[in-house]
Amino acid sequence: MQQPEIMRDLKQKSLNLLQEDAERIEKLIEIQMENLTTRKCPLYEEVLDTQMYGLSRQVDFAIRAGLVVEDGKQIMSRLERNLAILFEAQSPKE
Amino acid sequence: MQQPEIMRDLKQKSLNLLQEDAERIEKLIEIQMENLTTRKCPLYEEVLDTQMYGLSRQVDFAIRAGLVVEDGKQIMSRLERNLAILFEAQSPKE
Repeated sequence: MQQPEIMRDLKQKSLNLLQEDAERIEKLIEIQMENLTTRKCPLYEEVLDTQMYGLSRQVDFAIRAGLVVEDGKQIMSRLERNLAILFEAQSPKE
Repeated sequence: MQQPEIMRDLKQKSLNLLQEDAERIEKLIEIQMENLTTRKCPLYEEVLDTQMYGLSRQVDFAIRAGLVVEDGKQIMSRLERNLAILFEAQSPKE
């Protein structure tokens, strides 16, 4: 069964929107990674956690609406990996 | 120009999903309203704020994807009104 063009477009658009938002978070992670030598900013973690939660709700909604499936999950797991690397790099060394 | 049925269905589905989530928050507000006489729970505000943020991200996404417009905004403003009533009722009386 062929998918109507309108649905294909909408799915692509949804994915683009999620990716845009993911890139915004990615950017925040990068900035913080570049500033690792400076003092750790607790507010940064708070901001990133909040942004991640917001995006996870969007991805969840898009999945429930049938707009994205695997791509949405991949966006989140990629970000979660990068975030884990940042938090690991930021944690005080013994 | 008539809207293809598939888009009408998807828009309706999106709206239903947002309304479901809104009702979950509505329920939390109601429970807290019923417990006004008991001690105020600071964690409750935190939970509600987080839930509201999550839903606002979903509504925003649905609006950007062209799935909902006014209905989405109305869901949020209705919830915000109810939340304001709750916080007002909970604030300590002078």
